[in-house]
Amino acid sequence: MSEEGFGKAPAIVKPIYFFDEADGKNKMLLGGKGAGLAEMTRLGLPVPPGFIITTEICEKFYEAGRRLPDGLMDEVRRSISRLESLTGKKFGDPQNPLLVSVRSGAPVSMPGMMDTILNLGLNDETVEGLSRKSNDPRFAWDAYRRFIQMFGKIVLGVDDRKFDSILAGKDLSNPKVLKDIAMSFKSLCEGTGGKKFPADPYKQLELAIDAVFRSWTGKRAVEYRKQHNITPDMAGGTAVTIVTMVFGNMGSDSCTGVVFTRDPETGEKQLYGDYLINAQGEDVVSGRATPNHIDSLVSEMPDVYQQLLGVCEKLESHFKEPQDVEFTVEKGRLYILQTRAAKMNAVAAVKTSIDLYHEGLITKTAALERIDPEGLEQILYRRIDPHVKQKAIATGIGASPGAASGIAVFDVAQAEALGKKGEKVILVREDTKPDDVPAFFQSVGILTSRGGKTSHAAVVARGMGKPCVVGCSQIEIDAEGKSFSVGGKKVVVSEGQKITIDGSTGRVYVGEIPTVEPEISSEFKELLQWSSEMKGIKIRANADTVESAALARKYGAEGIGLCRTERMFNQHDRIMQFVSMIMAENEEERRRALAELEPLQKSDFKAILREMNGLPVTIRLLDPPLHEFLPKEEDLMQKIFELKSSSAKPSEIARIEKILHRVHELSEINPMLGHRGVRMGISFPEIYETQIRSICEAAAELAKEGVAVEPQIMVPQVGLVEELAAVRQIFESVKREVEHRHRIKLKIKFGSMIEVVRACLVADDIAHLVDFISFGTNDLTQATFSFSREDAEGKFLPFYLEKGIVSVNPFQSIDRKGVGRLMKMAVDMARKEKKDIEIGICGEHGGDPRSIEFCSTAGLDYVSASSHRIPIAILAAAQSAIKQNKRLHRHSTIA
Amino acid sequence: MSEEGFGKAPAIVKPIYFFDEADGKNKMLLGGKGAGLAEMTRLGLPVPPGFIITTEICEKFYEAGRRLPDGLMDEVRRSISRLESLTGKKFGDPQNPLLVSVRSGAPVSMPGMMDTILNLGLNDETVEGLSRKSNDPRFAWDAYRRFIQMFGKIVLGVDDRKFDSILAGKDLSNPKVLKDIAMSFKSLCEGTGGKKFPADPYKQLELAIDAVFRSWTGKRAVEYRKQHNITPDMAGGTAVTIVTMVFGNMGSDSCTGVVFTRDPETGEKQLYGDYLINAQGEDVVSGRATPNHIDSLVSEMPDVYQQLLGVCEKLESHFKEPQDVEFTVEKGRLYILQTRAAKMNAVAAVKTSIDLYHEGLITKTAALERIDPEGLEQILYRRIDPHVKQKAIATGIGASPGAASGIAVFDVAQAEALGKKGEKVILVREDTKPDDVPAFFQSVGILTSRGGKTSHAAVVARGMGKPCVVGCSQIEIDAEGKSFSVGGKKVVVSEGQKITIDGSTGRVYVGEIPTVEPEISSEFKELLQWSSEMKGIKIRANADTVESAALARKYGAEGIGLCRTERMFNQHDRIMQFVSMIMAENEEERRRALAELEPLQKSDFKAILREMNGLPVTIRLLDPPLHEFLPKEEDLMQKIFELKSSSAKPSEIARIEKILHRVHELSEINPMLGHRGVRMGISFPEIYETQIRSICEAAAELAKEGVAVEPQIMVPQVGLVEELAAVRQIFESVKREVEHRHRIKLKIKFGSMIEVVRACLVADDIAHLVDFISFGTNDLTQATFSFSREDAEGKFLPFYLEKGIVSVNPFQSIDRKGVGRLMKMAVDMARKEKKDIEIGICGEHGGDPRSIEFCSTAGLDYVSASSHRIPIAILAAAQSAIKQNKRLHRHSTIA
Repeated sequence: MSEEGFGKAPAIVKPIYFFDEADGKNKMLLGGKGAGLAEMTRLGLPVPPGFIITTEICEKFYEAGRRLPDGLMDEVRRSISRLESLTGKKFGDPQNPLLVSVRSGAPVSMPGMMDTILNLGLNDETVEGLSRKSNDPRFAWDAYRRFIQMFGKIVLGVDDRKFDSILAGKDLSNPKVLKDIAMSFKSLCEGTGGKKFPADPYKQLELAIDAVFRSWTGKRAVEYRKQHNITPDMAGGTAVTIVTMVFGNMGSDSCTGVVFTRDPETGEKQLYGDYLINAQGEDVVSGRATPNHIDSLVSEMPDVYQQLLGVCEKLESHFKEPQDVEFTVEKGRLYILQTRAAKMNAVAAVKTSIDLYHEGLITKTAALERIDPEGLEQILYRRIDPHVKQKAIATGIGASPGAASGIAVFDVAQAEALGKKGEKVILVREDTKPDDVPAFFQSVGILTSRGGKTSHAAVVARGMGKPCVVGCSQIEIDAEGKSFSVGGKKVVVSEGQKITIDGSTGRVYVGEIPTVEPEISSEFKELLQWSSEMKGIKIRANADTVESAALARKYGAEGIGLCRTERMFNQHDRIMQFVSMIMAENEEERRRALAELEPLQKSDFKAILREMNGLPVTIRLLDPPLHEFLPKEEDLMQKIFELKSSSAKPSEIARIEKILHRVHELSEINPMLGHRGVRMGISFPEIYETQIRSICEAAAELAKEGVAVEPQIMVPQVGLVEELAAVRQIFESVKREVEHRHRIKLKIKFGSMIEVVRACLVADDIAHLVDFISFGTNDLTQATFSFSREDAEGKFLPFYLEKGIVSVNPFQSIDRKGVGRLMKMAVDMARKEKKDIEIGICGEHGGDPRSIEFCSTAGLDYVSASSHRIPIAILAAAQSAIKQNKRLHRHSTIA
Repeated sequence: MSEEGFGKAPAIVKPIYFFDEADGKNKMLLGGKGAGLAEMTRLGLPVPPGFIITTEICEKFYEAGRRLPDGLMDEVRRSISRLESLTGKKFGDPQNPLLVSVRSGAPVSMPGMMDTILNLGLNDETVEGLSRKSNDPRFAWDAYRRFIQMFGKIVLGVDDRKFDSILAGKDLSNPKVLKDIAMSFKSLCEGTGGKKFPADPYKQLELAIDAVFRSWTGKRAVEYRKQHNITPDMAGGTAVTIVTMVFGNMGSDSCTGVVFTRDPETGEKQLYGDYLINAQGEDVVSGRATPNHIDSLVSEMPDVYQQLLGVCEKLESHFKEPQDVEFTVEKGRLYILQTRAAKMNAVAAVKTSIDLYHEGLITKTAALERIDPEGLEQILYRRIDPHVKQKAIATGIGASPGAASGIAVFDVAQAEALGKKGEKVILVREDTKPDDVPAFFQSVGILTSRGGKTSHAAVVARGMGKPCVVGCSQIEIDAEGKSFSVGGKKVVVSEGQKITIDGSTGRVYVGEIPTVEPEISSEFKELLQWSSEMKGIKIRANADTVESAALARKYGAEGIGLCRTERMFNQHDRIMQFVSMIMAENEEERRRALAELEPLQKSDFKAILREMNGLPVTIRLLDPPLHEFLPKEEDLMQKIFELKSSSAKPSEIARIEKILHRVHELSEINPMLGHRGVRMGISFPEIYETQIRSICEAAAELAKEGVAVEPQIMVPQVGLVEELAAVRQIFESVKREVEHRHRIKLKIKFGSMIEVVRACLVADDIAHLVDFISFGTNDLTQATFSFSREDAEGKFLPFYLEKGIVSVNPFQSIDRKGVGRLMKMAVDMARKEKKDIEIGICGEHGGDPRSIEFCSTAGLDYVSASSHRIPIAILAAAQSAIKQNKRLHRHSTIA
């Protein structure tokens, strides 16, 4: 209905395009496959003639309640007539029959998700004609039995396994046998459907078109679109492509194959692929025969090979993108049946991007745009040594990157116990639940046979940064017997046996496979270089150690955006001093304990500041509640119980009891919202005072050595401007005192985390008091959703993701509608108050490409990501800048 | 500096006003006392002549660095000259000396906070003149010794106790003794200050004015202003009032007294007050002598009494407010020295408001405006029986309203133990800390000797709704000896002895004092009636029981805004069924347990809906996490330990272990942000389904009986519109099913709590799906501040309040800048999406007058307050409506 309320006149829709008349750029209308064929036809490549029924017709099909639109088949008949005149064959002609393939093809690639029927047009009569014409009865009957099987399965819904059981053990080189098979297939179809197998080629065609359209809403296809976030505006339906059949199964001068224009594993510029002599496409795909490497074609069919090479070059220079090409050779003549952008791994994607640029095919911008930042994860984590040629025993879904080796353990308690003893454990479970989390902590990796990227195991493992493979349905777990098997007991792995998992690729190996640290290729360096030049927003690292700071610097981080001081306290050599600080009963005792910690803190700060010479280092004052540093209540109770049973010294029991008492005193109902961060810093000002003094002293001493220090002091958990004012007072007095002692002027920025909702709402007042603000989007997301992350990810969030209550985990990608809105408000208010205030983000979202794009459009100065993810962040930032530039350019063009 | 950057020309300031020339409305300039004297002079009342140095001069005094402005004393001399000609006396004249009082007086009443000097102008010579003139040496020397003491203490800083020790045991009726005292006082002053005591009356006057100005920033005054939130724009300084002395100590025909025009305890229209024959004002105030009740004046000085009665009536009809009047009778002649609005208790305030209206003195509006809604608390809670005349042994700060009797217990563990046994315990401590909270639960009241309204004890007790008196410094606690004493062992209360506390008045009594339920006077009913007519916003009640609903209805609540279903589950007769629902291992078991609960729930809902016949009842679906209903982990562990030690049946141990296991499974790190509310309702949809069915069934059955039911179903913890959509689906299907079964159409509103920050940010989407929204400001405040209320109020919030980091507890009064801002955003977005959406608030803020004003201006339809506080809410709503009307009227007048 149009806005005026009148009915809209139906748009004049052209339902069918021949390859030579279609606009190959219009994937939306023609589907990817059809568009590619049209484009190749226009380029003069050897494409068999054919035509496309558009995606609009698919939409009409559904609008009409799954019925082919009236008049469509008339159009199809007219198009078949044209095909007949182009090929000189006739559809249904017993002498010289025209055969076609009927294939699906959506605007967005959904490989293998919809249906294809080959050899359509065969029946008991035409098969004889084909046999005579080709002078090859084996070929003709082979084509016919294939057609009946595909048609039976796809159109008539016959169980595929029934066909296979008829095939089993038969001699497929014997035409008579093949004929018998075809007849048995027909009987099978007629037996199942209760109707005669359609002999009329047009009837076959009509049913096939109908089936392809139906497959658009088949279970597999719907699931695939959901998984890949393919929305109706991206793909409204599938097109149907009808192509004149050419045959790779017409003898030893025929073949069919798939070729990549570049190696999708390494990115090397050389043909990569397989072919099978005397076969049809499905033989390659199904894996029933072992194909030859494409290199053999050089000797087997040298002319064809040269021709293919030429086609590939033409395709690459036209599409400016490595291609994945389907071809068939019929009696020495090459036909190209499909082309599409080649899927590559991260290494290959990087290399080809750089190479395509240097070959002059694409611009730098295009080179950067074609790489998926998230994909770089494969390169950035410890991975299986690429020189090791061991085959994986199974492949699941890579759910948390990195490779790990350890002994398989099937029982949670056992995993926990062995892990605590220092054993490297890989926890193997059908799936996991919240109870299993303690075992996660004690494992080096997790493998499950069920679940997807948002399953409990996946979410928890990612949260902990542990390698994890989920949904590995190829392994069958015998929990009782404590073992798993692959391929029906072909491989059996028992508890205690070593396995290796790769959470990036999802692969599972038997034994301890050597792994390697991530390495940086020259192409990767070039990519980072370009990205750095192109990106607008700055990239900093979340790094608490010198090692992490060094890695960040190597990757090109422009500073440290978050250095957590609590991790320093948790180190073995100082946790006892920190505990005595917490146990202090008054300010004096606390100050004594802090005095011992001060030099340790100072030396930590000096090391990191020295490493980051010339770059800013944002140090966050102590954030977690004090009770987090004390032993757990139950452990203490256990200990007391043990001591009492073993009649230990009363003084020792009293000591533990005192700690237990303090644990009780400090315990909180909701520690996330409790006595922590600035709230603790204000109650015990001597803690922040000591930290600030350590930072000032470190800066002063290094400055004297000539190191260019740029420390920034950041206050966590601020919600009230008065809190910030109180800490600022401490900062200023300590700074003055240190400046005075060292006779030096210190340049130290003072700033606030924005991680409390209220801070967003009073960002102007906060801006007034600080040099910088930095969004802590982890806590901000928790408070905005009222989701405690630890509870949510272990309990209801996986369920929410599965049910579609949330589409993306808000702890992975910034929730623009809620959290993002608060951030924008805060940025606007802060900049209004103080134009040049520095604004960053240091939550884990800082490493997420979608979030980086958001931060970049929201006007932040920098994002801070974990050191390992710096390259991802840099590339994502560059892509975001490119996108914004284009938008700007588009707007200015319009204006 | 003016905005232009030029110096501002000094405004021409008139520093001094005589009473007969001043504008008695201008309290800001003249101070309360001066304005009252000017107004009374204008009314022709017998006020001794005098003048006022304005508050502007006080500001100048501080601008000049605590120096009297140049030229001021010249003006003062001119004014004294005028006084001389008005009185026929002369300042410093040895024959007929003029004496004056010098008194402070701020724009806002700060009783007793600043200084006053009487009898100024006396010296060794003028005292003799006064003696001769009055023919009363006793009087003259009495006046002189009083002057020296006051001047010595206030201007010269002599320790008051030293004067008192000179006075001790002296015969004050003997003029010679008084002369000796005066001389000793002078020596004391000169010995302390090292300077001669000033004889020159002008020097005395200058020093006295200086001292009054200084007293504005004295410790007491500053503290008082801070406590009472008196900001500089409300009172910039004190005025100085200089009045011709009149003497109540000139013999038996003289007296001085204080009278209220109405009884400040009951509101009865009759004079109330005390006077002392032959005395000066300070004698009444200091309590050194026992004054007579004002009724005796009828017989002692009948003419004066009649005159005083006339004055009081004149004052009331002029000020339209009961007055608190200071008077002095000098040799049979009445003088009025001060008048101000009388402070009254809640009962009296209500009665006088209604009476003043019926007497035609004030409008209904004015009658409502003059009552403090919070003050009504005194009337609305259980209180000491007013017929009981027992005196309190001590008075502290009433910190949580209501009266309670119980045995005094000094030890926390003991309080807990006795309380658990069913003993009524009043916990008595110097102060409390988080560790003591378990004992709070087991006590009926709390009494502390330290701390203010925001101390730990006060905050926690208020949170629990337990009567509490804090800061009762008159009691001295001997924690070791388990007793407290008052007035140096005059009264000793030992552990186990019964005491009674009144958390409204702060009074502490020995023994069990009878208490009464709140009663409703006819005046109170009238007040509620008027308020209901005048208020705009509707008032509903938070009520979970029939009793509470009935009380709310009695007070005039217009519905129930929050009926919490979890409290129903927690009742003794059904908690076991609820626990088995939680222990269920699958949906089927859960459904079985829920089926048992359904009829119980239904009957609860029916009872409340029936009670609220014709009014809406908003029922919130289950909110708390399930683990809240299970026993505590440590109790279970203890139980298992005991069972094992006593070699109990293995099956019993197994049963407890199973519960413990479930407790572990459900336990959360931050339950406030965990698996609760709609998040739980979506994971276990059968729980909400059962609750919704109970409500629908209850509504259907009652509707058939002819009860006008208006249930509203409210979903808690919504942050995502998808959550709401999922519950709405359940609601609609259950409603259809019940409608079908009962062949009836149900009118049930569906709505959402707005208590998650994100809900505020997507309020438009939420509005689309609901009939109403209701702000849960408790949780919203927690999430906005990242303050867990339970942790904050026990730990850092009292400290924050004390240090001024927050000025008001945001859990008591809505934080307008943060939470309020979010609420306004949400209201605007929701109304934009759905104009007639019903919007309310059901957090505890619903009973807070300041918050009600905010809600009313923010455009909410109703506030929901606890049943006990409904009258407070109704009055506050009326006051807010009056305020808004005035503002509107003012604006329309300007326009």
